[in-house]
Amino acid sequence: MRDFLPGDVLRRKYVVGIVEEVYSSYGFEPLETPAMERLDTLLGKYGEEGDQLIFRVMKRGEKLGRILQDIPDENTLADSGLRYDLTVPLARVAAEYQADIPRVFKRYQIQPVYRADRPARGRFREFYQCDLDIVGSRELTVELEVLSAAAEVLSRLGFSNEDFTLRLNHRGILHGLMEVCGIPPGKEESALVAIDKLDKIGAEGVQKELQERGIAEEGAAGLLRVFSSETKGNSQVISRLGGLLEPSDAGMKGLAELEWLIERSGNCPAAGCLRLDPSLARGLSYYTGAIFEVEMTGFGVSAGGGGRYDDLIGMFSGKKIPACGFSLGLERIILLLQERNMFPKDLAGKPEVLVTLFSEETLASGLELAHCLRGAGIRADLYPEPGKYGKQFKYAEQRGIRRVILQGPDEIEQGVITLKDLETGTQETVSLDQCVALLTR
Amino acid sequence: MRDFLPGDVLRRKYVVGIVEEVYSSYGFEPLETPAMERLDTLLGKYGEEGDQLIFRVMKRGEKLGRILQDIPDENTLADSGLRYDLTVPLARVAAEYQADIPRVFKRYQIQPVYRADRPARGRFREFYQCDLDIVGSRELTVELEVLSAAAEVLSRLGFSNEDFTLRLNHRGILHGLMEVCGIPPGKEESALVAIDKLDKIGAEGVQKELQERGIAEEGAAGLLRVFSSETKGNSQVISRLGGLLEPSDAGMKGLAELEWLIERSGNCPAAGCLRLDPSLARGLSYYTGAIFEVEMTGFGVSAGGGGRYDDLIGMFSGKKIPACGFSLGLERIILLLQERNMFPKDLAGKPEVLVTLFSEETLASGLELAHCLRGAGIRADLYPEPGKYGKQFKYAEQRGIRRVILQGPDEIEQGVITLKDLETGTQETVSLDQCVALLTR
Repeated sequence: MRDFLPGDVLRRKYVVGIVEEVYSSYGFEPLETPAMERLDTLLGKYGEEGDQLIFRVMKRGEKLGRILQDIPDENTLADSGLRYDLTVPLARVAAEYQADIPRVFKRYQIQPVYRADRPARGRFREFYQCDLDIVGSRELTVELEVLSAAAEVLSRLGFSNEDFTLRLNHRGILHGLMEVCGIPPGKEESALVAIDKLDKIGAEGVQKELQERGIAEEGAAGLLRVFSSETKGNSQVISRLGGLLEPSDAGMKGLAELEWLIERSGNCPAAGCLRLDPSLARGLSYYTGAIFEVEMTGFGVSAGGGGRYDDLIGMFSGKKIPACGFSLGLERIILLLQERNMFPKDLAGKPEVLVTLFSEETLASGLELAHCLRGAGIRADLYPEPGKYGKQFKYAEQRGIRRVILQGPDEIEQGVITLKDLETGTQETVSLDQCVALLTR
Repeated sequence: MRDFLPGDVLRRKYVVGIVEEVYSSYGFEPLETPAMERLDTLLGKYGEEGDQLIFRVMKRGEKLGRILQDIPDENTLADSGLRYDLTVPLARVAAEYQADIPRVFKRYQIQPVYRADRPARGRFREFYQCDLDIVGSRELTVELEVLSAAAEVLSRLGFSNEDFTLRLNHRGILHGLMEVCGIPPGKEESALVAIDKLDKIGAEGVQKELQERGIAEEGAAGLLRVFSSETKGNSQVISRLGGLLEPSDAGMKGLAELEWLIERSGNCPAAGCLRLDPSLARGLSYYTGAIFEVEMTGFGVSAGGGGRYDDLIGMFSGKKIPACGFSLGLERIILLLQERNMFPKDLAGKPEVLVTLFSEETLASGLELAHCLRGAGIRADLYPEPGKYGKQFKYAEQRGIRRVILQGPDEIEQGVITLKDLETGTQETVSLDQCVALLTR
């Protein structure tokens, strides 16, 4: 399997762009199916050799446990796994292709990732992430660029500054707050997992969980005091944290970074969306600096997030390479746009017209007509079966194609075509050139 | 995991289009990595819970055999597999969503497929196919549309009629030729596999293989006579086949269909590319009617192919639904375009300009400048680290960005910027508006 570096992807996009343009100009519509299918769907379709070439995905959980009784463990059976996110593959690529990529590598990547999770609303086993990351620089400009691109995407999709917030925190601040509450370094990660659930299970729930995780009562009370604060507004939060974090160097450094970001964001699209929130933890363990999360107003779950991870690439390259990135969850954004009716009415890609077929005898002329329209850049579907117009109109309506072209023997003789609007019921008899003009108008 | 029907895909493409536009306007470049990674790349990066959520792919071949000694078979361990092509998933979708798709369903699908094959030149374990199929109609117009779209893509990519041929054959003709050579129906499939190797291993090799596959000597000799014919030109091949296939109904019906296709292709982009070739077999067992393959002149391997498969969907739906389609192999097309230097010089997507950073003090102004350029639709990269221009120019050159913008304290004071062309070495000092005009020109 291969990695496609930017030059490769651009070449692929060029070809795919033309393929899609032609395919859709012929009235084909796009379909996407998951990378995994049930084994019984796949087996017996490709011949004996094909069955051997299928990558099989292991069973999981209890089912696997029952089978594994007699053999060592699941790692013996599997030698590869599906992408879990796009950050670890980037880290591997950044380490592997150090000589081929620029010292500062700005890449984006939009691909599906796979998690053997229990599916739920807005949570799937295959889902797309839209990631962007800057590898190779420790400067905070990197965070600003990443946050701005995130804000810009949301605003270009039609979300206003009231619809979303970029919550902002810093690993240094989290560490500093743990420090001043007296949580031992070894328990920090575990305490964070509990704190992260504050929104879901409330202060009492978190207190219970902190206890279960072996956090001393005093420390737990301190954490809850610190993290359940109702202080709002960036400057108030900054001054409150400045007081709390005084004894912690890491905390003060993290706070200074976030102050810088908020102050400098004034000229960027992220201005006005940033909200400092010391209770933001984010699950993944690889973050080392600023962390952020997109909160969509009234949506409950995050639509994306990211942060700085200066140690991850070093796990592959042996050499410390800093990085910072952001990932947008495509499924959740689409769910929101759909719920709020924010998709444009006419999405590019649908056929613009259906060329009907009157009879076997008009077929040659119908084919030529479709060919001319496609050549003029119009997405033209051709009904493949000559016969009753009613059936062909119904097909057009079902596909959401508003206009149909009729061309019987009389029209062919006169060198004209009839263009019918199925929505209004009106029709006009025009020349091919006029028809092209009407359709591209 | 989900299927995305056309409406879903269009919505996804809309969002992805905007995400890509914004991401690339910020100077990010696209990267793609394979769906599978080594397990040791993935494990230990996402915490304990993450490790549990990774889909594991089973070992294969001998390695698996050694582990499997004590347990029943590999199907016990796996419950799903990765896509092997895009046709079987389409057949499943067409059966599963009968109520949601039009009676005639024209879909295209561009996604990676996976085969646990030995990698070779132009052959990978993960590769993209660009498929288009028409489900639900038995009319030959379907074959014409599919062949035309294939020819149109190749011509839009810059291949002339001399660069490629669409080889055409028919399962009925293959069956008819077997019949007249006295090959028993049970041996047809096996004899075809041998005949398919004629190009690679020659007549003698095929004769030997036919013998090994238990084809009687007389039948084998007949097959070789029939399939090694040097007859060229569609009309000559048609008249030769017409003589040979007389005793076979299936053969004559198949031949009539191909005659119809060649005759009617006159008004379509496929005109002049179709070449009737009775030795074309195509491996997959699901084809039932016309079959075709793209032969790129001087390339040796096929760049795509397809055909009619009227029985495959019935395996999922229990109801016979006809279909016909074509698949273009993206990797091979890209390989050819690259070898023949056919890619356009400037592929859309690269940053058009790099905004350099003079010092920490000019950062705010640099951010604002980048923001303005991006808002004007220009893909503008921003160098994240203030410092020496030389280093920043080197970065631009490495990324193939021809123009850089310089803005030091003097320029900021005067409200101008310097636009430098790294290729010619010339530079001019202009206003922001002039700069935008120059870059969008």
